[in-house]
Amino acid sequence: MKAEIISIGEELLIGQTINSNSAFISSLLNNLGISVRQVTTIADDEEEILRTLTESTGRSALIMLTGGLGPTRDDVTKNALCRFFDCTLKTDEAVLSDIITFFEKRGIEINELNRQQALVPECAKVIRNPNGTAPGLQFEKEGIAYFAMPGVPFEMKAMMQDSILALVKTLSPDANPIVHKTILTQGIGESFLASLIVEWENQLPDFIQLAYLPSPGIVRLRLTGRGKNESLILEAINKEIEKLKIIIPEYIWGYDNETLEGLLGKYLKEKGETLCTAESCTGGYIAHRITSVSGSSRWFKGAVVAYSNEIKHDLLNIEKTMLEQHGAVSQQTVEAMAANAREKIEADWCIAISGIAGPTGGTPEKPVGTVWIAVAGKDTLKSRKFMFGDNRERNIIRSAVAAMAMLANFLQ
Amino acid sequence: MKAEIISIGEELLIGQTINSNSAFISSLLNNLGISVRQVTTIADDEEEILRTLTESTGRSALIMLTGGLGPTRDDVTKNALCRFFDCTLKTDEAVLSDIITFFEKRGIEINELNRQQALVPECAKVIRNPNGTAPGLQFEKEGIAYFAMPGVPFEMKAMMQDSILALVKTLSPDANPIVHKTILTQGIGESFLASLIVEWENQLPDFIQLAYLPSPGIVRLRLTGRGKNESLILEAINKEIEKLKIIIPEYIWGYDNETLEGLLGKYLKEKGETLCTAESCTGGYIAHRITSVSGSSRWFKGAVVAYSNEIKHDLLNIEKTMLEQHGAVSQQTVEAMAANAREKIEADWCIAISGIAGPTGGTPEKPVGTVWIAVAGKDTLKSRKFMFGDNRERNIIRSAVAAMAMLANFLQ
Repeated sequence: MKAEIISIGEELLIGQTINSNSAFISSLLNNLGISVRQVTTIADDEEEILRTLTESTGRSALIMLTGGLGPTRDDVTKNALCRFFDCTLKTDEAVLSDIITFFEKRGIEINELNRQQALVPECAKVIRNPNGTAPGLQFEKEGIAYFAMPGVPFEMKAMMQDSILALVKTLSPDANPIVHKTILTQGIGESFLASLIVEWENQLPDFIQLAYLPSPGIVRLRLTGRGKNESLILEAINKEIEKLKIIIPEYIWGYDNETLEGLLGKYLKEKGETLCTAESCTGGYIAHRITSVSGSSRWFKGAVVAYSNEIKHDLLNIEKTMLEQHGAVSQQTVEAMAANAREKIEADWCIAISGIAGPTGGTPEKPVGTVWIAVAGKDTLKSRKFMFGDNRERNIIRSAVAAMAMLANFLQ
Repeated sequence: MKAEIISIGEELLIGQTINSNSAFISSLLNNLGISVRQVTTIADDEEEILRTLTESTGRSALIMLTGGLGPTRDDVTKNALCRFFDCTLKTDEAVLSDIITFFEKRGIEINELNRQQALVPECAKVIRNPNGTAPGLQFEKEGIAYFAMPGVPFEMKAMMQDSILALVKTLSPDANPIVHKTILTQGIGESFLASLIVEWENQLPDFIQLAYLPSPGIVRLRLTGRGKNESLILEAINKEIEKLKIIIPEYIWGYDNETLEGLLGKYLKEKGETLCTAESCTGGYIAHRITSVSGSSRWFKGAVVAYSNEIKHDLLNIEKTMLEQHGAVSQQTVEAMAANAREKIEADWCIAISGIAGPTGGTPEKPVGTVWIAVAGKDTLKSRKFMFGDNRERNIIRSAVAAMAMLANFLQ
């Protein structure tokens, strides 16, 4: 079964908001063996919505819409749906009671706009929304299924997972499975990776496709297999991955949706060890990535973000003579940061990082993008210099990726 | 002039990558008065690319494509473009020399895949790419302009800003300007904001549209004006904003692309004052947001991420009796964190935060989402309790937004 997504919202077309909803929906549909053929993003405009609904209907059997169901005047999706399905709006008592409860819980009095959220197209089946006031809507016409969801990502995600996925499953009970497996690499650029593995790529069976997905510091290799028998496809893919592991063992660090922060958490939890960070140019970004993992207080003790030389001295006991002689961005300083923070915070491991994120602050000897990273453990102290580019945001991300990968190597 | 964007890449359709390119392109085109009518995302498939090119050509006068120009086998955009414009690939010597220089600079030897990147459709004008190996391509057919760019965001952004924008400008020298102005609010939900300002909304002139854009902790109000005279439209929009400021002064904190971290930096730089953070549940996220601003080392001294009670005690001098009596998530602890970190790091201001981000760790007295925030200054110490929801990621973002807004209030 082919699906399409229609994302509705002027904010997406003027570039004010990035469309993250469609990626989320696609990924869940894909897991069910339903491939998304197209995502179409259009404005909150009844005519555009009608045109796009008509076009998609000719191409695909499942149409998912998001956006424009909100309480404010710029939201016109319900009107367009009424016109497309030729029906009118009526108040749904169950939805109204949901809305009243939603605000009662929060100790807030309901207003007229909230009340209007209970108006739904009478030809739609209502999908309850426990996280907001706009209900989801399900339609069916000439064998094609339509789902309309609110555009607020938090509400859409919960509705998709809690209600709509199960409904979609019943529409496509025996879809041909699509199996994805992604190999995560680090430390090598896309084209060099491609030359290293060209012979392996050439011998892949016809039903397995390879795609390269580069992002700052990380290249993902995605293998996609299609066929009738899911376990046979998966087996074939795993066989190919085993071959690849022999060719590029030093660059592979994980699979699928694994993250470096998740992997570090897994290793540390298994070993019963703890971690801290001492960060300069990454400004707390590594600590943020590590603490974005639920349960991280079990293995993460904390961080010192030493954005000034005084903090490096006062909180991390870096001697002033060292900072004067070698500078803050140096092997000596970053190693001392790692060792001292590890002792001070009483953690088993410490990642320290000092560099010039840019775009200003570079010198001829230490240009923007120069980053020193150190990892300290009980009997370990290792450091390495990296030369990244001149984009601040990318340098921060690449530094964090390289630092987490360095620690992962020790913990593996 | 109407434009469309065609985003090409299987990774976008299986939900592995979020399409951030189209938002970037839309926003730049919008600034030129060119509105983007539709974004279409399709797979790396020659037939789909041809179909979409044909459809878009019937609707819009400017078509921007991204993706599928890379060096690996899954990249087929150049082939599709050759078929659409009926021409063949040939090696471009200038591009080849760019590619050779690109790798020489990095001390890496060029391989055959890199060399193939110099193959371009002979009917295209080449747009140089200083940040990568895939050049951009410009086409023209029956009065419609086409630009194809690489999908790697970093390369696409530089190419768009440095080359393509100027070319697009010449195509549409006297486009009717579109004027956007966005008001940034914080501390109130969408529907309540809407009821507060309903009368103001009703009296807006016809040529000004209002849209609500909610995100965690922040609701943006976007005013869009269209017409012949840009300065008159801007004047009218500013007049409406002045009226709005009288109705909801306490909720407005900024405009357009301003960020709370940027605003804090501006205020602190003006006053010559410095900031530090003492973070528990946000895990370094506030420090990361603040240091994402270039030049932030001038006003940000650093942070202590105290993810364990020991660090709260050892680095921030929080007495153990206080932690035992009141708990880590309490008014007493968060105020002590702010005051002590401010002294220890010798900053003028400190933001401290302690809470339960979830999804685990809550108790009946302190459920997930309970967050205490304190701001300490020379003669100030203020704290406030917030009750957010049960989503970890959202709680971290909302906590950071609320904390930065609290400090911004003091600095204003």
